[in-house]
Amino acid sequence: MEHIASRGPGRPPAAKAAETRERILHAAQEVFSELGYDAATFQAIAIRADLTRPAINHYFSSKRVLYRDVVEQAHAKLMAAALAKTQEASTLLSRISAVFAAAMDTESTDRSAAAFLVTSVLESQRHPELVSEEHDALASSRKFVTWAVNDAIEKGELSADTDIPAIVEMLVAVMWGMGFYAGYVGDRDELAVIVDKFELLMANKLWQLRD
Amino acid sequence: MEHIASRGPGRPPAAKAAETRERILHAAQEVFSELGYDAATFQAIAIRADLTRPAINHYFSSKRVLYRDVVEQAHAKLMAAALAKTQEASTLLSRISAVFAAAMDTESTDRSAAAFLVTSVLESQRHPELVSEEHDALASSRKFVTWAVNDAIEKGELSADTDIPAIVEMLVAVMWGMGFYAGYVGDRDELAVIVDKFELLMANKLWQLRD
Repeated sequence: MEHIASRGPGRPPAAKAAETRERILHAAQEVFSELGYDAATFQAIAIRADLTRPAINHYFSSKRVLYRDVVEQAHAKLMAAALAKTQEASTLLSRISAVFAAAMDTESTDRSAAAFLVTSVLESQRHPELVSEEHDALASSRKFVTWAVNDAIEKGELSADTDIPAIVEMLVAVMWGMGFYAGYVGDRDELAVIVDKFELLMANKLWQLRD
Repeated sequence: MEHIASRGPGRPPAAKAAETRERILHAAQEVFSELGYDAATFQAIAIRADLTRPAINHYFSSKRVLYRDVVEQAHAKLMAAALAKTQEASTLLSRISAVFAAAMDTESTDRSAAAFLVTSVLESQRHPELVSEEHDALASSRKFVTWAVNDAIEKGELSADTDIPAIVEMLVAVMWGMGFYAGYVGDRDELAVIVDKFELLMANKLWQLRD
């Protein structure tokens, strides 16, 4: 058959190729998180993926292309998890909790995802050329929180001062603080506990303060 | 005079030497933040400091030694600013606000400090050998918050559920989220605004929520 004859001698069948590509993306996510973009090499990624350096080159033409694909995949996974979790949520707090829950799910199935997404914000300052508008996790988190806060105000659930952009930005900073914590400080159980405390704080139920 | 005769031919006088050392530390803080520990080189730091590579080596015998001195200085500056600000503060909220204010002061006098301290937490995971117990900013922040929360409970200012370590850890995560925001997302004015919103949230005064 023609399509078999047209293959190069070492070219893998499609299913195997998809699996190898996935393996490279996962290894690259870990190596980018651990070493940073500049220090990460195809050689280090090849060793992590248990493949040869030319094998990596076969799937990804450059470090920049590979990095963008890792960003795209990590972002897509988090968005899919957040969407699934937020669909049942109808209040501001439950929606914000849903994003934390999605981050925790992503974290538990793929431990390097939170660390990678946090470093991707750092890398986008170090290397503006790496920023992809479509898969910018910081921009996505800001968009989501803006929508959730505005919706809560429209529905009369939330009454707050009028400086909504500032409230949104504060919640975004806290979300990334939790991501930073998940990726670099605590384990999954510790994250679950602090998310629970922050949810109580958002509900004005964490503590009573006497002046 | 003997101490002049004992100098090597290119050896700078003490005041000049201290100034050069300071210049190298500042350049190194920026380069370590921007490139990460692994990708940062003496060559890049020399260019940033407008010195030669051997000049850097004259002051710092290795990248590890230079890195530790940058950590020590950034940590000491933040601690000094926090101590000065917290001395007038006597309530939990004003003490936590004092640390945010200290971070903002440090940020405004030395823009790369917040970014550097955040990356130092990442680097301590990447390179456990770089961790210095004495100058561990994460450990210092945890120690400070623990003291402030316990003191507030003892004085009857705060009544909260008994899971104090979890509350401390949540506040620590938020602080580092603000640091991450200061270092990599917003400018000083944006940081001041979100800190203000978080202080309102801590006081249960940011918003009213209807169930």
